[in-house]
Amino acid sequence: MILTVTLNTALDITYRVGALRPHTSHRVSEVTERPGGKGVNVARVLAALGHEATVTGFVGGATGRAVRERLADTPGVRDALLPVVGPTRRTIAVVDELTGDTTQLNEPGPQIAPAEWGAFLDHYEELLTGASAVALCGSLPPGVPVGAYAGLIKTARAAGVPVLLDTSGEPLRRGVAARPDLVKPNADELAELTGSHEPLRATQDARRRGARTVVASLGPQGLLALTPEGRWRALPPAREHGNPTGAGDSAVAGLLSGLVEQLPWPDRLSRAAALSAATVRAPAAGEFDRTTYEKLLGQVTVTGGPAAA
Amino acid sequence: MILTVTLNTALDITYRVGALRPHTSHRVSEVTERPGGKGVNVARVLAALGHEATVTGFVGGATGRAVRERLADTPGVRDALLPVVGPTRRTIAVVDELTGDTTQLNEPGPQIAPAEWGAFLDHYEELLTGASAVALCGSLPPGVPVGAYAGLIKTARAAGVPVLLDTSGEPLRRGVAARPDLVKPNADELAELTGSHEPLRATQDARRRGARTVVASLGPQGLLALTPEGRWRALPPAREHGNPTGAGDSAVAGLLSGLVEQLPWPDRLSRAAALSAATVRAPAAGEFDRTTYEKLLGQVTVTGGPAAA
Repeated sequence: MILTVTLNTALDITYRVGALRPHTSHRVSEVTERPGGKGVNVARVLAALGHEATVTGFVGGATGRAVRERLADTPGVRDALLPVVGPTRRTIAVVDELTGDTTQLNEPGPQIAPAEWGAFLDHYEELLTGASAVALCGSLPPGVPVGAYAGLIKTARAAGVPVLLDTSGEPLRRGVAARPDLVKPNADELAELTGSHEPLRATQDARRRGARTVVASLGPQGLLALTPEGRWRALPPAREHGNPTGAGDSAVAGLLSGLVEQLPWPDRLSRAAALSAATVRAPAAGEFDRTTYEKLLGQVTVTGGPAAA
Repeated sequence: MILTVTLNTALDITYRVGALRPHTSHRVSEVTERPGGKGVNVARVLAALGHEATVTGFVGGATGRAVRERLADTPGVRDALLPVVGPTRRTIAVVDELTGDTTQLNEPGPQIAPAEWGAFLDHYEELLTGASAVALCGSLPPGVPVGAYAGLIKTARAAGVPVLLDTSGEPLRRGVAARPDLVKPNADELAELTGSHEPLRATQDARRRGARTVVASLGPQGLLALTPEGRWRALPPAREHGNPTGAGDSAVAGLLSGLVEQLPWPDRLSRAAALSAATVRAPAAGEFDRTTYEKLLGQVTVTGGPAAA
């Protein structure tokens, strides 16, 4: 089983409107909802790849119940979320029907009480006993200490479970220092962490800060992996047009599944790059099209190798 | 007991954001929620005036459960909503923190199946047996026939229960023809119904179309009432600055409570105008401040009388 942690789960709501005009009233023509938060997205892709995935994190209130109901309808994903008093956040993506442009409104998430955070630490340690790998994903809800991921990384390392970190800002900075097996920053997160906008230099710096492996997701420039085994770059066949929402989460699922299957690095990176590109191409945000994925898998170009490490 | 019907109930959500900029991402700094739909707002004001209020209409899904939980916390309001399969709609008001301007996003509401509509008609007839008056409020959810209010008005008349209608468009047009005791259009609804932008002429026309009494709510121009007993105009003391959301619903609650208490028309209209103005002045949308209401009550100017009818 692969465990994904989403401390700030969400109900992702998409509204379609004719055109968003501030300070006017809009009829929403179409409403779609799905359980969200980065780790939940990662689990959904892992399940689609044939892995057993367990999601944990916090869930509360009426929105939390809606998240759990939808998770129960997601085959291959087990719900191990911990109930809390505060309500799970909603995220609202308002899509202009004409242009396809999206306006995003993100609620902050529930206030987590110290006792709730303490209960989570016990719950997490228990879940780790059955996990072949764990991914720590996304932002922290209010009340969770900023060093939360650093603690969760140490617990995973003590349990001998490989741990991947995908977050940003100060939680990423502190998490990296706790020596995770893998971090997957995007270009912005990498620049914020290291102060450098030059991807290779920034990736090297992120490794020096403590991450055993860094895989930077650079959008159309593909993936750059600096690992103890060598250095690789994976490029999808052509720039994908579409919605990049969830592309990073699909890449995380590709890397995690490849780690658990002990694939060689070039195969892990091909899978991650193809999944990411297939997610950009899919009509629904955060989904990926299997046929597109399988087609793209053979078209990813991987360069580099052990010598280049 | 006063019955209010809200076929398209809602969870009214308010987001505060720094400034709404289309096609960017926003962190919501504050989230507030309350049960909504015009009849629910009317019931809340009736309860605050000391009347027993019962709300009915449809409720469904996770959002419907959130509406019911919040109604259970509203003293004086009894929940007689009918569960349906489709989810209750959300309305989202995005308030710019700097300017106070509001951008509104309204979901369409649940699809009502023919069997659900049939079940509601039985439920409604039963509730009428204990009602001293009934208000039919707001828009129709998908699947409810456009002549729905006309049917509900006939049922109320057959049961000897005075019926007030507050809606717009074709449901208003058909409803008025079914001879309700009272309609309360605003200036736009009145113009759409009659084709006239001249309030007195339009109000007279609305009566000719079948309404026994028409009370037009004309914003800063107050209320204009054409009744079988005479003609009155009620003016609040000064133009109110604030949020007009729910001001019409407060006026409906004033008129309904005055009807049940058999107040003379000038007193009913003073109450409705003062409640409406106190709602505009209240900091939270749709609430009214009791102290402001009581102060304004003595300051409303009512002109007209039986001779002017």
